[in-house]
Amino acid sequence: MTTIAGTSPYTGLQLDPVAQESSPADVNRIVESSCQAFAYLQSIDREGRAALLQVIADSLDFNAEELIKTADEETGIGPVRLTGELKRASYQMRFFAEVLREGSYLEATIDTPGDTPMGPRPDLRRLLQPIGPVAVFGSSNFPFAFSVIGGDTASALATGCPVVLKAHSSHPRTSKISYEVMAAAAANFGAPEGILGIVFGQKAGTALVSHPLIQAVGFTGSLGGGAALMDAIGRRQQPIPFYGELSSLNPLIVTPNAAAERSADIGAGLAASITTSAGQLCTKPGVVFVPHGQAGDALVSRLVEDISDSTVAPLLNRRILESYAAITEDLDNHADVKRIALGKTSAAGGFRVSPALYSLEASRLRPDIVQECFGPSAIVIRYSTVPELETALSTIENSLTLTIHLGQNDDEMAERLTQLGRARAGRVIYNGYPTGVSVSWAQTHGGPWPSTNSLHTSVGATAVRRFLRPVTYQDAPAAVLPKELRDGGITVPTRINGQLCLPDK
Amino acid sequence: MTTIAGTSPYTGLQLDPVAQESSPADVNRIVESSCQAFAYLQSIDREGRAALLQVIADSLDFNAEELIKTADEETGIGPVRLTGELKRASYQMRFFAEVLREGSYLEATIDTPGDTPMGPRPDLRRLLQPIGPVAVFGSSNFPFAFSVIGGDTASALATGCPVVLKAHSSHPRTSKISYEVMAAAAANFGAPEGILGIVFGQKAGTALVSHPLIQAVGFTGSLGGGAALMDAIGRRQQPIPFYGELSSLNPLIVTPNAAAERSADIGAGLAASITTSAGQLCTKPGVVFVPHGQAGDALVSRLVEDISDSTVAPLLNRRILESYAAITEDLDNHADVKRIALGKTSAAGGFRVSPALYSLEASRLRPDIVQECFGPSAIVIRYSTVPELETALSTIENSLTLTIHLGQNDDEMAERLTQLGRARAGRVIYNGYPTGVSVSWAQTHGGPWPSTNSLHTSVGATAVRRFLRPVTYQDAPAAVLPKELRDGGITVPTRINGQLCLPDK
Repeated sequence: MTTIAGTSPYTGLQLDPVAQESSPADVNRIVESSCQAFAYLQSIDREGRAALLQVIADSLDFNAEELIKTADEETGIGPVRLTGELKRASYQMRFFAEVLREGSYLEATIDTPGDTPMGPRPDLRRLLQPIGPVAVFGSSNFPFAFSVIGGDTASALATGCPVVLKAHSSHPRTSKISYEVMAAAAANFGAPEGILGIVFGQKAGTALVSHPLIQAVGFTGSLGGGAALMDAIGRRQQPIPFYGELSSLNPLIVTPNAAAERSADIGAGLAASITTSAGQLCTKPGVVFVPHGQAGDALVSRLVEDISDSTVAPLLNRRILESYAAITEDLDNHADVKRIALGKTSAAGGFRVSPALYSLEASRLRPDIVQECFGPSAIVIRYSTVPELETALSTIENSLTLTIHLGQNDDEMAERLTQLGRARAGRVIYNGYPTGVSVSWAQTHGGPWPSTNSLHTSVGATAVRRFLRPVTYQDAPAAVLPKELRDGGITVPTRINGQLCLPDK
Repeated sequence: MTTIAGTSPYTGLQLDPVAQESSPADVNRIVESSCQAFAYLQSIDREGRAALLQVIADSLDFNAEELIKTADEETGIGPVRLTGELKRASYQMRFFAEVLREGSYLEATIDTPGDTPMGPRPDLRRLLQPIGPVAVFGSSNFPFAFSVIGGDTASALATGCPVVLKAHSSHPRTSKISYEVMAAAAANFGAPEGILGIVFGQKAGTALVSHPLIQAVGFTGSLGGGAALMDAIGRRQQPIPFYGELSSLNPLIVTPNAAAERSADIGAGLAASITTSAGQLCTKPGVVFVPHGQAGDALVSRLVEDISDSTVAPLLNRRILESYAAITEDLDNHADVKRIALGKTSAAGGFRVSPALYSLEASRLRPDIVQECFGPSAIVIRYSTVPELETALSTIENSLTLTIHLGQNDDEMAERLTQLGRARAGRVIYNGYPTGVSVSWAQTHGGPWPSTNSLHTSVGATAVRRFLRPVTYQDAPAAVLPKELRDGGITVPTRINGQLCLPDK
């Protein structure tokens, strides 16, 4: 049986063993237990689940020291960012408690009986309800906010779906401790064990998504890892939704006017956005479109200067290190691509690399040159005309984000690039940087393929929609209706005969 | 090149040729043209699309005579039901115009900039937007309401997605004329040709879902037909959502108390529900659970009597005829299954069959015995105890609907069966029959696999959600925002900083 252990990015050495790989019998037992807990999560209603998320959040905060120390050993992300990330994770749990209490997410709808142009209509009452046990595969780069205690877990639990986690191979001990903190808080709350489960090892992950009782999969990771899970799902008798966040180039476009007005600012902002978290953010701007000419040159100069001066934390794991080395080597050797900056390498060992910046003519852009590169690198693409820019944009893949830097008199460019951006990304950013994703009501962290399952978001209030399905009750006795659908005063925003009504405060 | 023609269910003879099979070049041209029309549908906004749906609806009503005559020749459904069905289709177009004008479906959300526990938040504004050209495959049994002019077309057009239709092989002329009526109305309205397209032939259908510019597929039909399209979609480079409504047994459960109180009523109601539209409704009750004992016997007697007296319209096509013959022959020959009623066969030729009713002990129920049977047949399953009923229910597949007939003192049964029903179906019906699906705000025509893509509905207001994806604008200049997200007074229900707000009337 394989032993699961992480590796220190600071030294490259293997850390102490964490667990044995979960056997097929383990996976089956854990999933069956989650199925039994499904009824409990529904029975405690929105109020109960909000309270549960709250105690989990409190417990995460209370155990911050151990969580951060462990995550730093396994990821090399450093305590400062990890402290912020843990705060984000517990904030996210509390945010979904708020979403639950508000209740709009249920889409409560009541059609009273009556005559219609189609004849008499029965009493119809509709609500979204949880789909069942969900498998969650976190990402390497956010050991808290997009892993075991992350948004997929929080949003699934909020809806009332039990969660079975796959411990991340790059931070198995953090995964285990995170799970234990949540499980202890849930047990203290009085929840049955099955509301949360965890499995270790890649084979166990495949067994998990193949299990007939699992009803959806949340995944954040590589296109290759996602494809393997989608294959396993494709072999199931019952297809289930796969919510994958897979790959994103995050193009950033600087118009000629923006370059003329703010070349140094944009150059400096970009360098920070490319190198933050060692460039290992899914929203890192990987492709930057800069106009030819003096202003564009000035922007690139500042960017080159800042990248050359930069050092970054070690990369998360050996796989990312090797992939970064391979992709940058390909770029170094490509006839059309020129390396224009190389950052500093810090002295210490482990998974350390230098930031790197490349340049390419828009007319020489081919889809195979630009691919997602996890790590502190980016490609500057120089363009001469707007049609050339638009053609270049159309050759690269869809993304989570698209960023537009505009000047004062760019109304027409703003309109054209917005149309392009909303067709190609889930979030369009103006005069800013794509790194940094607020947890809020209006957020979208998604986008057309391959950045993600295109119809949903994994961050923000509506992330819950992924784990819900509609049920309509026709002429139901009041006693069997979910309480939000009963007569006698609405408790959540409710559509009644087509009219959206708000509850009294 | 293959010629496309329908067959008369009244005679079994082939009708006049309708069209040539569409070539790969035809399919490509039509999809590219739909892509060009996508921008137009967005540019005319909700008001424009509502007006467009209205003129299409008016034109369908105006051309009712020709549409009904043609559909009757190809489907044998008869002018009475076809008249009602066409009314349903035009009503549905107008209903989605109302959904558009109301505007909640956009999920407009605004987070204004400010401080949060996670640090400063930018201005974030979110809206659902159309995904792009949609392929629609209608069903044989609803040549209007679930075919070319049906709910998938209406809901996709409503959101602003162009629609490319696959003409149904069982009613190709109805498909063609339906398309022409809509296309003429749209042209009159000033819309470009590409907002609607149609292709003929099975190969063209596969080419359609494989086309890289198609962004979603709506399908109503057999599990086999759905699986073939899903295979083709699986081979695409970009996966796209497949909204399939595939198969449904629609169990109906009679409790002992209900049988004791209303045996004759339920027997008669069931016979009507099983034989209406020759049993070719996706919501036909195919499996009926009746308690052992005197009251159950009385119910079955009335059901047997009514089924024995019944005749039905011819079946829709040769494939359904052959499948009905094969499934009923299997049941006739099954050792555990007993045929308890056979309806009358009308004298005329064509695709005519006799209604048939079967009986089976709950303890002998196996998944392979009960499968969807398109046509006027059902299986009565006799049970002795509630656990036996629950075990039997758990062996059959999920459905679009689950129906519960309750007596006066059935509070506990109501609760248990409701929990079971909402886990297994998209609509739970009490003391009624599943046939008949109102087009309304609270409707769900969906359910867990294999009845349908589980997260959505193909009937009712929220059918539009299938063709929408979220986009968030971060710090966007007002001019580039969709008008619903601009400052200065909301025009649709909008969530502002978490608070749902309604526009002034």
